[in-house]
Amino acid sequence: MVKKVKAALVIIGDEILSGRTRDANLNYIAKWLGGIGIMLDEVRVIPDIAKRIQDAVNECRENFDYVFTTGGIGPTHDDITAENVAKAFGVKFLLNEEARKLLEDNMGKGNLTEARLRMAMIPEGASLIKNPVSAAPGFQIENVFVLAGIPVVMQSMLLDVENRISGGAKILSEAIHVFRGESYFADILADVESMFEHLSIGSYPFYKGGEYGATFVLRSALSEELEQALEILKKRICDSGTEYFTGEAP
Amino acid sequence: MVKKVKAALVIIGDEILSGRTRDANLNYIAKWLGGIGIMLDEVRVIPDIAKRIQDAVNECRENFDYVFTTGGIGPTHDDITAENVAKAFGVKFLLNEEARKLLEDNMGKGNLTEARLRMAMIPEGASLIKNPVSAAPGFQIENVFVLAGIPVVMQSMLLDVENRISGGAKILSEAIHVFRGESYFADILADVESMFEHLSIGSYPFYKGGEYGATFVLRSALSEELEQALEILKKRICDSGTEYFTGEAP
Repeated sequence: MVKKVKAALVIIGDEILSGRTRDANLNYIAKWLGGIGIMLDEVRVIPDIAKRIQDAVNECRENFDYVFTTGGIGPTHDDITAENVAKAFGVKFLLNEEARKLLEDNMGKGNLTEARLRMAMIPEGASLIKNPVSAAPGFQIENVFVLAGIPVVMQSMLLDVENRISGGAKILSEAIHVFRGESYFADILADVESMFEHLSIGSYPFYKGGEYGATFVLRSALSEELEQALEILKKRICDSGTEYFTGEAP
Repeated sequence: MVKKVKAALVIIGDEILSGRTRDANLNYIAKWLGGIGIMLDEVRVIPDIAKRIQDAVNECRENFDYVFTTGGIGPTHDDITAENVAKAFGVKFLLNEEARKLLEDNMGKGNLTEARLRMAMIPEGASLIKNPVSAAPGFQIENVFVLAGIPVVMQSMLLDVENRISGGAKILSEAIHVFRGESYFADILADVESMFEHLSIGSYPFYKGGEYGATFVLRSALSEELEQALEILKKRICDSGTEYFTGEAP
């Protein structure tokens, strides 16, 4: 049996939905999770609205092994993530002494304004997630990890998350590319996929320099299966009179 | 009253969730919708799994004025979007004569293989969405618009969508930037926001060249309100002894 561990990501931020900001966290987290054997299985992008945050967190924590949120944990009036994660769990939202001290050590006692103290408000029972970049911590409560939205800060927080979660079988993948429409290979792909129990094949068309092509991605947790499938697919593509390419996508 | 029209986007594709491909459609669609007075209010990224597609489409079409899907309408075994949109609506999934003819005209009769014919299978009652790039159409069924995943194709389909939807009040925005932590401005931002009925202010911190800064984005459907708020905010920032910048983010 191949054990699958699944995660959801909730991206909280009006600025992504308005198109002002291009999200950079989805792709980073997807790859980072893949590297430790966890499948990112759903992403939601929602606005900074109390009920929407509570609902997304509650639905996702029921349905996935792990949930990550990004955004909305800063010091201003529109930073309402932490408060609403507390509400989602039905726990108190309190000044956390450990977080207060982290901020004070970083900023100096005199600079710990009321606005900044907001960043030390944490749901009761949560454990802090270190922020080596700018001190203001994220937090973990049960299977939910609340992270900053700024990519460099979010990425630094993952260092403290890595030892708290454990993955299943790591999904291995191989990719090959052709400069021919994917429809020519539809039967071959379906055939090869059906020959192996844990294999999945994705076909991703592209359009480059006026030419159509496709990338076929084979995925399996079993390296032997993956290698066998790759050899068969290569042979079938050759037999069809098409050249294939490996390595980076064209 | 300011009328709000809201849309959801469902991005269907294992390749985005695995991190192999970086989605390029979210940001494009967000801006395109904003330009016609429609707020993108939720995005979901889900895998190519039948039930997940049906559930996401059904939840979103209940809760939003418009729903857009991208991905999974090609000719291969992993292209299962159209079929599952039909299931979500409880309608038949049939060979559409108009779509078949579009493909035939584009590819030549002899080249219309069985795999390619899959791209002419459309839910009963849907109307086709033109694809000027590669012929294989998208479709609209009620408030759901099913689009291709390849960005250049998806974008070309939006040309045929634009005259089928209508927006509410267009949300106008202004942005100013400071090179100082956002926490210094927390009270000012909350104050100014509270002075206007339709105004929202977002504060988006950044970290650039070793310095912290923030972009404040003011949004309102009323241009007069927006201009007044901007002047007040500028004055309050100046009074606090900080320089602000307008134009592109630093």
